[in-house]
Amino acid sequence: MTDAQPDAGRDQVVMLSGGVGGAKLALGLSRVMKPDRLVIVANTSDDFTCLGLHVSPDIDTVVYTLAGLADPERGWGRAEETWNFIGAISDLGGEDWFRLGDRDLAMHVTRTRRLAEGASLTEVTAQLARALDVGVSILPMTDQSVATVVETARGDLAFQHYFVRERCEPEVTGFRFAGISDARINPVLERVLGSGRVAGVIIGPSNPYVSIDPILGIPGMRTALERAGCRVLAVSPIVGGTAIKGPAAKMMRELGVPVTATGIARHYGQLADILVIDHADRDETDAIRDLGQEVLCTATVMHTLDDREQLARDCLRALGLAIP
Amino acid sequence: MTDAQPDAGRDQVVMLSGGVGGAKLALGLSRVMKPDRLVIVANTSDDFTCLGLHVSPDIDTVVYTLAGLADPERGWGRAEETWNFIGAISDLGGEDWFRLGDRDLAMHVTRTRRLAEGASLTEVTAQLARALDVGVSILPMTDQSVATVVETARGDLAFQHYFVRERCEPEVTGFRFAGISDARINPVLERVLGSGRVAGVIIGPSNPYVSIDPILGIPGMRTALERAGCRVLAVSPIVGGTAIKGPAAKMMRELGVPVTATGIARHYGQLADILVIDHADRDETDAIRDLGQEVLCTATVMHTLDDREQLARDCLRALGLAIP
Repeated sequence: MTDAQPDAGRDQVVMLSGGVGGAKLALGLSRVMKPDRLVIVANTSDDFTCLGLHVSPDIDTVVYTLAGLADPERGWGRAEETWNFIGAISDLGGEDWFRLGDRDLAMHVTRTRRLAEGASLTEVTAQLARALDVGVSILPMTDQSVATVVETARGDLAFQHYFVRERCEPEVTGFRFAGISDARINPVLERVLGSGRVAGVIIGPSNPYVSIDPILGIPGMRTALERAGCRVLAVSPIVGGTAIKGPAAKMMRELGVPVTATGIARHYGQLADILVIDHADRDETDAIRDLGQEVLCTATVMHTLDDREQLARDCLRALGLAIP
Repeated sequence: MTDAQPDAGRDQVVMLSGGVGGAKLALGLSRVMKPDRLVIVANTSDDFTCLGLHVSPDIDTVVYTLAGLADPERGWGRAEETWNFIGAISDLGGEDWFRLGDRDLAMHVTRTRRLAEGASLTEVTAQLARALDVGVSILPMTDQSVATVVETARGDLAFQHYFVRERCEPEVTGFRFAGISDARINPVLERVLGSGRVAGVIIGPSNPYVSIDPILGIPGMRTALERAGCRVLAVSPIVGGTAIKGPAAKMMRELGVPVTATGIARHYGQLADILVIDHADRDETDAIRDLGQEVLCTATVMHTLDDREQLARDCLRALGLAIP
């Protein structure tokens, strides 16, 4: 995107993230660089109102992961969770397809109350992260409401209806983001990107369609990223023809896009200066270079904490940043 | 209040209730008469907003008790409750002095959502009770907001601040009910009382100051009770110079009122045709009769389910009603 080289005054890293995959890399980054120099931009287009409560799944996955509270097996929600609230909702005949855990509920109740009091989602997110001793700056992509609509063969579905209730089964024909034309880039993020202090932007190994595209689609976001004057690195969420987690591969297939790292490279196009792909996809290196992107071929599947730190170091090095 | 005798067309019983004591008698009544002829009017002046959620403690105590879900030891909330939500709220630095249980939370979240959607508290309460298979009609005293303010030597306190946070410790100098002049009697209750079908009104063994007075203070309530054309029976919450539960005795003492069944008789005055007192207070029978009230001396302390049914039968008989 640009050839600007990092200098001493550039010490911040901005990472765009959806849920689990992005959160894992965010955790790795937070452990190999100064956490207060790291800014995570979380997708909020899968936010929704559940039982009257404002739920921000991607923000919470990032917060819980960075706070050490995320459930390691389930991939969402909190460790050592209990489910008595949602069981009681079932007993009352309420909607129970979105499994709100008892501890998790504290986030949604607090967020809902603070938003009703007039706080912005940025302020609430900062408050929640601070309360859980998270030193990384976690920013919602926007303070306005944006809602992913999944266009499917069975008709339009709100994202969580598609993702949780329908278990990603309906065939996808497209996406749109309701409200996005009225959304404004997060004001804190806009300041960070315009500060001249950003040394690199990382697009996490998140779903390009429903996690990253809504962030990039906020009016002014691409321009702000360009003006940051640093290189953009994207980590492919596709490894060996499949997605590590979630419906990215299924979506690509249904949209007629090759389920390959090259497919991801094409998706991000000129926005990405560097694509990080897994060793399993090394055969695609030349094809991706032909698209004008540098390629870093490394281990991108993050099973352990060491994996996360190692991938984080690889990304920072590829951006030309010193690792402390 | 009136000498009207019950007749065949009069088959409904209306009971005014606060929390635990009233709920126990309501349960007894629901077991010795047809539940669908029983109407419980619950105090709502201790309703409050907790963490942004609409909490109706007295309604919920009545609902839980009639649904068989009340915690038998604690005196509030649900049996087999867990506390992970409020623990997580503490971790977030939130207000945690009002202990919302995980299962209990389902009521507050559902109520808050439905009220925000425009439902009345009457409608929401009916929905919740129906979902829990409660056949008794449970009516909030009003659909408008009324808030008990406890006037104390340390200044005014919102009821739950006095009751829960301050554990009833501040010395009481008086009470007022914010919003009561704008409140309207529950429209369903108004119809019931005007139907000519009410065979008797029972004032439960609840706190006269903070549970029953707010009900009686709703504009038009006393007139509607009079127009019902039936007798009113009150059960004294004071037994042997103390209250079975809660701060009634302490309040009477601080207000300079004798902590006796006679004190209760005086408090209700001409409204009550019959006062039910415990055997422990039989010495007060003549003093109470001198005030113009009939006296039924029986066992009013409800430890067991049998106790509740027995007191319920005693009340119905004193009102001249046949027990099926």
